[in-house]
Amino acid sequence: MINVVIAGFRGAMGQATVQTVRNQADMKLVAVFDPHATTADMTQLPDDVALWTTDVDVTAADVWIDFTTVEAAYHNAVLAIQHGIHPIIGTSGLTPQQQQELQQQAVTAHLGGLIVPNFGLSAVLLMKFAQEAAQYFPDAEVIEYHHGDKPDAPSGTASATAHLIAKSRQNAPQPTVHNEARGADIDDVPVHAVRLPGLLAHEEVLFGGSGELLTIRQDTMDRSSFMTGVLLATRKVATLNELQIGLDKVL
Amino acid sequence: MINVVIAGFRGAMGQATVQTVRNQADMKLVAVFDPHATTADMTQLPDDVALWTTDVDVTAADVWIDFTTVEAAYHNAVLAIQHGIHPIIGTSGLTPQQQQELQQQAVTAHLGGLIVPNFGLSAVLLMKFAQEAAQYFPDAEVIEYHHGDKPDAPSGTASATAHLIAKSRQNAPQPTVHNEARGADIDDVPVHAVRLPGLLAHEEVLFGGSGELLTIRQDTMDRSSFMTGVLLATRKVATLNELQIGLDKVL
Amino acid sequence: MINVVIAGFRGAMGQATVQTVRNQADMKLVAVFDPHATTADMTQLPDDVALWTTDVDVTAADVWIDFTTVEAAYHNAVLAIQHGIHPIIGTSGLTPQQQQELQQQAVTAHLGGLIVPNFGLSAVLLMKFAQEAAQYFPDAEVIEYHHGDKPDAPSGTASATAHLIAKSRQNAPQPTVHNEARGADIDDVPVHAVRLPGLLAHEEVLFGGSGELLTIRQDTMDRSSFMTGVLLATRKVATLNELQIGLDKVL
Amino acid sequence: MINVVIAGFRGAMGQATVQTVRNQADMKLVAVFDPHATTADMTQLPDDVALWTTDVDVTAADVWIDFTTVEAAYHNAVLAIQHGIHPIIGTSGLTPQQQQELQQQAVTAHLGGLIVPNFGLSAVLLMKFAQEAAQYFPDAEVIEYHHGDKPDAPSGTASATAHLIAKSRQNAPQPTVHNEARGADIDDVPVHAVRLPGLLAHEEVLFGGSGELLTIRQDTMDRSSFMTGVLLATRKVATLNELQIGLDKVL
Repeated sequence: MINVVIAGFRGAMGQATVQTVRNQADMKLVAVFDPHATTADMTQLPDDVALWTTDVDVTAADVWIDFTTVEAAYHNAVLAIQHGIHPIIGTSGLTPQQQQELQQQAVTAHLGGLIVPNFGLSAVLLMKFAQEAAQYFPDAEVIEYHHGDKPDAPSGTASATAHLIAKSRQNAPQPTVHNEARGADIDDVPVHAVRLPGLLAHEEVLFGGSGELLTIRQDTMDRSSFMTGVLLATRKVATLNELQIGLDKVL
Repeated sequence: MINVVIAGFRGAMGQATVQTVRNQADMKLVAVFDPHATTADMTQLPDDVALWTTDVDVTAADVWIDFTTVEAAYHNAVLAIQHGIHPIIGTSGLTPQQQQELQQQAVTAHLGGLIVPNFGLSAVLLMKFAQEAAQYFPDAEVIEYHHGDKPDAPSGTASATAHLIAKSRQNAPQPTVHNEARGADIDDVPVHAVRLPGLLAHEEVLFGGSGELLTIRQDTMDRSSFMTGVLLATRKVATLNELQIGLDKVL
Repeated sequence: MINVVIAGFRGAMGQATVQTVRNQADMKLVAVFDPHATTADMTQLPDDVALWTTDVDVTAADVWIDFTTVEAAYHNAVLAIQHGIHPIIGTSGLTPQQQQELQQQAVTAHLGGLIVPNFGLSAVLLMKFAQEAAQYFPDAEVIEYHHGDKPDAPSGTASATAHLIAKSRQNAPQPTVHNEARGADIDDVPVHAVRLPGLLAHEEVLFGGSGELLTIRQDTMDRSSFMTGVLLATRKVATLNELQIGLDKVL
Repeated sequence: MINVVIAGFRGAMGQATVQTVRNQADMKLVAVFDPHATTADMTQLPDDVALWTTDVDVTAADVWIDFTTVEAAYHNAVLAIQHGIHPIIGTSGLTPQQQQELQQQAVTAHLGGLIVPNFGLSAVLLMKFAQEAAQYFPDAEVIEYHHGDKPDAPSGTASATAHLIAKSRQNAPQPTVHNEARGADIDDVPVHAVRLPGLLAHEEVLFGGSGELLTIRQDTMDRSSFMTGVLLATRKVATLNELQIGLDKVL
């Protein structure tokens, strides 16, 4: 049985996590942590879930799942590490220096933990497979598809995928014509962004070799997909012996 | 029974057409036309196929299929029209003025004919459907996929498709972010070109509406596909009453 | 300006239609019809929208949009036709005999109307294009993709598409191996059903010819897509001169 | 420099391999092996390539690539192992017992080698990734696409993929409706086979999770793709210390 405390339990991701953790046979929600919450906020929760509002409350749990704010997340992670609770930080925005400090503290405490920029398992697997395929197929292109309202292009995930492909490949790709129809050139990986109403969030990587193609695609239909990643992290974080970054570290 | 004469019967497309026409139960190859051919070039053909080498040879046929050179094609088309033979001109490169002159001659002769820039039926249907869909879905993007050796981008067919979409749509597309990842902007239709080894010739059009997508895609695997279009044109050209441009005119 | 009355305005589809119609510059919501509603149900609506609860209330509107129950829909349609209001019946379940009676009444009244089994425009266009493509490509297969909870397979839309393809094609498809991996055989069109969590509602038709493929695909992400079809029907229904079945009748 | 001997150099795969090996800067074709060949068969080859026709000819090479017949391949592999040449057996049809005997001999000789049922790298990577994804997504379906002339369904590769997925997954898939539209049930993985003219050889695996999808697809356009696998095997076979089965063993 994994004993879990959730920080940020009143936000959208926190609420979904509370629901999901409670539905697992091998997990127990022992507490929620929120300095600003009162017992009035606990009406939806079972009686045996504790409300921790201060440092001194924090006692026994195995895993600390954090979906708070960038201001709170660093302090919360310090608190978790001090109490020997494995932190899983889903809150985004920690600075590189904050991340390094937390990693140092985790080393000192001999405690594993995870900072997770993306809980989408299909996206994380796509990136992992793309890196592996790039070792054999240096010629690759990325196409990402999002709703027309998305203000930037390409998506952060698509850019990250292109960087990983470039880093992983062992030969240079073949030269091709370059112009605006050929997309953004990210480390010699063309990245194309499609923006249309009706699209949700989709990413596709195409690898071409002599006489063959390999395509890896992922589609995110809604945020419920993130819960699969949260559960995976919760079940595996104790196997780590340092504070690592990325869901792929527990694959 | 459709009586066919083929000009340019020694070239790659001509040879394929000879083979294809001979395999049809409703067509008869009555002659080949080539001023430079001799009977020695006829060994692969049945005895009852005539070799026409001069204007005076040209007698009776229903359809004239032309896969010659731009120099020969205009003269051949004039000849066909003079003899009441429906011309199907697969040879590319006729100037707009040449096309207009031929069209005028066909009007005078009350004769239907077809100038066909693209015999690929799946590509022609894609363009036809894309125009129709654009009336209802003004938001569209085109992605074309070709081998890395193709020196230009986007393909002529993809550009033509974008122009047709723009012309057909009745409302302006929704504004989106514009930068190099968003492809070439052709009449407000983003066009993306993918270039990878292993690819053949593929084109995809995506239409997006509120909560739904419509995608039309065509893949050309090899040139045998063009014969489907040649047969279609041969069977339908007699239904036209002028010299028209595009295989879609007989759809 | 198109004056619209909506029946079933308290249901999910009715509410969405109210919202959508009110957002159009060329439409005006003049009334809602519901024998069981009271003014208390009208609080979300502007003051100038009338509540019609009995036959005698029904006065002037151009278009009657009906999302009620199968019991109410027939009577409502009769009412609309009697008052010269073009009916658009989105309610499902009318019997063939009821449909024929309504069609007869519309003929007598010289009034156009539309019974719409599927407002999804991308699905309707897919079926239209598939019929057209089948004339040239007799070899076709259908793949539909739905959530694992869907209890039947294949979907009604996929079956309907297969029937339309079979009816439209002019040549027999080539014989292929038949066994359970080859899907359901609907009029010699193999239909495959994929059922996975994460899927929404997707349909794909593949046409194969010598050396080429044509693929038409539609994805329904959510029910907001149906509103595009409702608006299209509302704008075009007055151009019909009888009561027809299917959104494709106004394409 | 890797010294290579090729057996079956006059067949289609052998000829392609000769060409490919000769084009590599890090490989040298030192000999071809064929008991029935004469110097007359060597005219296309450089002068410094030896022709080995008997056991006593066989001397020094690093790698033995075999594309012969099932009758010859076993004997050839024995010969290669006896001379300390790493065998890469692309010839299909060895019995399980023959494979085990060769594996035993390779163990005795402390020699690595590879029996390769499929040199298609994209297909091998697809199977590898599918096994990994199945650990996280137990719900999977396979769709394979081949030309209408293919007499069997599903393809051997698709069946093999389904078996690997079933073996790898750690949870049971969700129950779904079962009937002929749902394809062949291979270890609780539905497998669908599409057969159309125009198709080449394509395989797709879809994994579904809550709110997300992961799709892996490979397309084999022509047999030139197999050469990528041959080169990979040739470069990596010396790193093995036994005779293994499958190109994935050198990934």
